[in-house]
Amino acid sequence: MTWHFALVIEPAASDSSQTVFADTFTVIDPAAPALSVGELSTQRGDGIFESVGVVDGHPQEVDAHLDRLAHSAKICDLPAPHREQWRQAVTTAAEHTPRRGEGVIKLILSRGVEHGPAPTAWVTSGSAPDFALARAHGVRVVTLDRGYGLDVPSRAPWLLLGAKTLSYAVNMAALREAKRRGADDAIFVTSDGFVLEAPTASLVLRVDGRFVTPAPNGGILHGTTQLSLFEHLEAQGLHTGYEVVPVSLMARADAAWLLSSVRLAAPITSIDGKDVPVDRELTASINEYLLSPRD
Amino acid sequence: MTWHFALVIEPAASDSSQTVFADTFTVIDPAAPALSVGELSTQRGDGIFESVGVVDGHPQEVDAHLDRLAHSAKICDLPAPHREQWRQAVTTAAEHTPRRGEGVIKLILSRGVEHGPAPTAWVTSGSAPDFALARAHGVRVVTLDRGYGLDVPSRAPWLLLGAKTLSYAVNMAALREAKRRGADDAIFVTSDGFVLEAPTASLVLRVDGRFVTPAPNGGILHGTTQLSLFEHLEAQGLHTGYEVVPVSLMARADAAWLLSSVRLAAPITSIDGKDVPVDRELTASINEYLLSPRD
Repeated sequence: MTWHFALVIEPAASDSSQTVFADTFTVIDPAAPALSVGELSTQRGDGIFESVGVVDGHPQEVDAHLDRLAHSAKICDLPAPHREQWRQAVTTAAEHTPRRGEGVIKLILSRGVEHGPAPTAWVTSGSAPDFALARAHGVRVVTLDRGYGLDVPSRAPWLLLGAKTLSYAVNMAALREAKRRGADDAIFVTSDGFVLEAPTASLVLRVDGRFVTPAPNGGILHGTTQLSLFEHLEAQGLHTGYEVVPVSLMARADAAWLLSSVRLAAPITSIDGKDVPVDRELTASINEYLLSPRD
Repeated sequence: MTWHFALVIEPAASDSSQTVFADTFTVIDPAAPALSVGELSTQRGDGIFESVGVVDGHPQEVDAHLDRLAHSAKICDLPAPHREQWRQAVTTAAEHTPRRGEGVIKLILSRGVEHGPAPTAWVTSGSAPDFALARAHGVRVVTLDRGYGLDVPSRAPWLLLGAKTLSYAVNMAALREAKRRGADDAIFVTSDGFVLEAPTASLVLRVDGRFVTPAPNGGILHGTTQLSLFEHLEAQGLHTGYEVVPVSLMARADAAWLLSSVRLAAPITSIDGKDVPVDRELTASINEYLLSPRD
């Protein structure tokens, strides 16, 4: 992403009774130096983030993103974000995305400068990359071992597995490994054979007419786009479910998608070199829905 | 750490024949804005680092740190650092540490600004915190599950387990968990019962008169201070060894230390609440050695 707009936020206490937060925002040049070398986000990947999709200037699913930001903050022992302050920051950033077409807003809450007085926080926005090809033609994925067993996240919360932290070097390395193997994306699986998520997306399978996603049991993020899709499918009377998904279930899927806030629904065309059927009509309809304003 | 000096480096190609690099260094104010919000170090924890101890202006074990920086770069698919350029940056940063007493130099190589032309790199330096108490009185540690089995690192290199990356949120969370449990530090262990390392230090045990450290088999960093200590002990005719260390071996240790570049040797006084004997005389002698100029 190339950011076209950036706003530094002076974080308010979560119980502040302030209602208008414009005076806590400072617009900065996104290409100019803004962060000091003492920032723990940069020295330690110590902070959390969210990426919000924007369509025709409308930020999508802001509540779900703010819920997850608060959840990540809790797991990481960061001060609870003031919900209304962040909402207003998103609104301001959205005003600086294209009036027509797609944009992205990124929220970052860092532990701050080492030995500094408070967390640092900022919001950036810009135009979204063009994902038309991935949505129409799909993505080839490979499975990669995430290294831990399915029961690890619940017994080792210090691994921060349910938080969306800035420590994403492994996620980025997994995408490079996928490309080395001739694929476009990866799906993390546990060492004991269960499906987790993609490095920057959720997975949904259609099996026997049901739409299934791995249960967000602490080991994976709860995908905001997947959540929105499930509501949409359920409203049409279709069946959805959060399940413990064994790797073997993927071979039985008659359609599968990676879902994320900006790329939206990318149909999976192959897993580890084996073709997966693509339902082009349904995929187009899902993306049409995901491109409509959603709250 | 509060940095008193910072230098931005324009990274040279590893095969550059340039021999003097002063023109690739830009001194900046370490407290001033220096990095843009597009930096992948801050957005993704995507980069690598080293922390070098400095004693009376002399940077310690620079070669071992530059070796490890190159090793981390390779694992992370980052361009190989130009060794002589980084050495000169360390020399320059060392000139800005206290003439008497202890300092720290931190080297950071980031993947750069997203979609930018090149990695970004910088070096910071400052006075070291006072670790006299930890060296003399020791640290209480707790063991924490790192979540993976001993064989995982070799079969899943995308987990970057042998690289010193900027994605240290889990290491920082482990230290917070240790403090919550009334301890000072943590020791990571595998899910199948083997000892790894501390979040920011290596572990050395003395068992049956031998000095033992977990083998750096891809799952842990090779500690530069541990390496230096082993050379020192071997020169005195003592026995050292890299081993696969089961958790049960810790109970048999008649002395144990956490070793790191800046805190140096901190004797372990208890593990999970069980006392560990402290050899005060040997610890003092080890720290005296580690505080002497070492190359």
